[in-house]
Amino acid sequence: MDLHIDNILNDLEKDNFQAYLLTKFTNVGYISDYKPTSFAFCVIKENPVIYASKMDMEIANRDSKIEVREYESFEVMIGELKKEGIKNLAIEPTLPYSTYEKFRDDFSVESKTYVDKQRMIKTPEEIKNIEKATEIAQKSFLELDILNNENNENEVAFDLVRLMVENGASKESFDTIVTSGADSSLPHAIPQAKKLNQPILIDWGAIYGGYCSDNTRTIIYTERQQEIWDIVAEAHDKAIKAIKPGIKCCEVDKVARDIISEYGYGNEFIHSTGHSLGLDIHETPGFSLRDETIIEKGMVITVEPGIYLEGEFGVRLEDTVAIYRKADVIGDLPLKID
Amino acid sequence: MDLHIDNILNDLEKDNFQAYLLTKFTNVGYISDYKPTSFAFCVIKENPVIYASKMDMEIANRDSKIEVREYESFEVMIGELKKEGIKNLAIEPTLPYSTYEKFRDDFSVESKTYVDKQRMIKTPEEIKNIEKATEIAQKSFLELDILNNENNENEVAFDLVRLMVENGASKESFDTIVTSGADSSLPHAIPQAKKLNQPILIDWGAIYGGYCSDNTRTIIYTERQQEIWDIVAEAHDKAIKAIKPGIKCCEVDKVARDIISEYGYGNEFIHSTGHSLGLDIHETPGFSLRDETIIEKGMVITVEPGIYLEGEFGVRLEDTVAIYRKADVIGDLPLKID
Repeated sequence: MDLHIDNILNDLEKDNFQAYLLTKFTNVGYISDYKPTSFAFCVIKENPVIYASKMDMEIANRDSKIEVREYESFEVMIGELKKEGIKNLAIEPTLPYSTYEKFRDDFSVESKTYVDKQRMIKTPEEIKNIEKATEIAQKSFLELDILNNENNENEVAFDLVRLMVENGASKESFDTIVTSGADSSLPHAIPQAKKLNQPILIDWGAIYGGYCSDNTRTIIYTERQQEIWDIVAEAHDKAIKAIKPGIKCCEVDKVARDIISEYGYGNEFIHSTGHSLGLDIHETPGFSLRDETIIEKGMVITVEPGIYLEGEFGVRLEDTVAIYRKADVIGDLPLKID
Repeated sequence: MDLHIDNILNDLEKDNFQAYLLTKFTNVGYISDYKPTSFAFCVIKENPVIYASKMDMEIANRDSKIEVREYESFEVMIGELKKEGIKNLAIEPTLPYSTYEKFRDDFSVESKTYVDKQRMIKTPEEIKNIEKATEIAQKSFLELDILNNENNENEVAFDLVRLMVENGASKESFDTIVTSGADSSLPHAIPQAKKLNQPILIDWGAIYGGYCSDNTRTIIYTERQQEIWDIVAEAHDKAIKAIKPGIKCCEVDKVARDIISEYGYGNEFIHSTGHSLGLDIHETPGFSLRDETIIEKGMVITVEPGIYLEGEFGVRLEDTVAIYRKADVIGDLPLKID
């Protein structure tokens, strides 16, 4: 039997559930190797089964390592589950309320993070995919020649995506951020149809083998920008040094946050220090104020402190860290681009 | 007071709810003009309020036409709502179960589609944005010169996105599909790192002013492909002619499905005939087997019949139709590309 499925069956037995319902595409893909492109109901139990949509049957039959049936109707599916004697069902926290509503009359339902928990710890093969995605993304960034680029922000963003695809990525891992000037104070700025101003902040990543990468660089020009950049770089470096198995995620956030606060910019660091990534660009755990998760070998988490001065500019620096015995930064792109 | 909010307040009163909770980014954007980039809780009541994340405060304050407060903690937010005497809460069907769980102890909760219902009927201004998005997407498609393109499928896909951005789109409205040869039998095929084979199926769209476009063309080469293409084109044309205010959505699906079935390919038409679009690429209602929604003026719905021959090839043709007194195809790209 498959290790991932075995682990879920153990969790189910411990918690007295008979089955685990998965509908999130990356979770279904993680468990079955078939990543839905339309809705699918994956039910993990002694004899796991996926109810796939008619339009996905060709790829589901091709890719899935667990049994696939064509979804006919909700009633047919529920009927089959009830006939097997299933009365209680664990669900994902992300399940839409309207789907939960359809199950709650026939089953006792509770949310569990069995798959998320497994996905927190990456295998060497998963980490290799993240490394390869990072390598493609960083190589493409350098080819972009950002210091001599005359295009608009939004054109630069899509040129970077095109380069990543040419270099072997299947696509970008999230909407590429290319922002500059005062707009860089928006952490999730949308690239605009305007020429690059100063500073330039680029937050980008590739997908390779289904796995995401994530980096940010900020290219600075003035003394004031350098001053802020130095603080962010110090927070970035010291947070990475602090990472090791056995400590809590929030302790890493505290390292970065304390440094930025000591320089007087605590209120301008307006997000968490980092997030896990893998099949999704945002996974758990994260380096945040309240995340008490103990860091373990096999986790892959970003470190991305930033300072955002409204009306002026923002600086963010981000690398992705794989945790073995200690924390290793993935990739070799210099922090300072000039 | 704002019309959208007024409508919701009327719905709430009729259904005996005190407030409506919105968290879906496009719904929050539709109501407030602020489209979150991180989580946000928008509560529509007599005095509507948005709890925005710290990192979104700059754009929320800039864009929102309703009051914005910085989200501090779940407890603070719940406390404020309870202090106002709110005891029952309508929620969106898409709300994740884990968010619902946080509200269910303090409020009586039920899912309602108040915003989806309003979004079904587009204003002339919304339709203009969809028309402009379509125009950009179709112009870019022609500039791609697909008949003389030597690139790989995935490169063509990203070249098309780059052209759309150059031509004024903010981005693609969904992952561009460029597929060819036997892979075209997968309705949601992922562009591969391989040269274009025959036939070529391209399904693409742009976003302009926040609004999506959606088109599909299949470029055919053999007699067998022509035979299938003709059937799909007949279903496409006759379904569009059938659309008018007052009939049910499922009746339009039936027109397309009956034609394809009469030619013996009913089992190879493996999805619905169409879906609404707007701020999202998939909205309700849709031209599907079971959608009994009555078609009204102001709806914008795609028509996209297809025939998928596993191991051989697939053909799909898609246009977007705006419903005024009758149904008008948006854009003027010929159905036959050769």
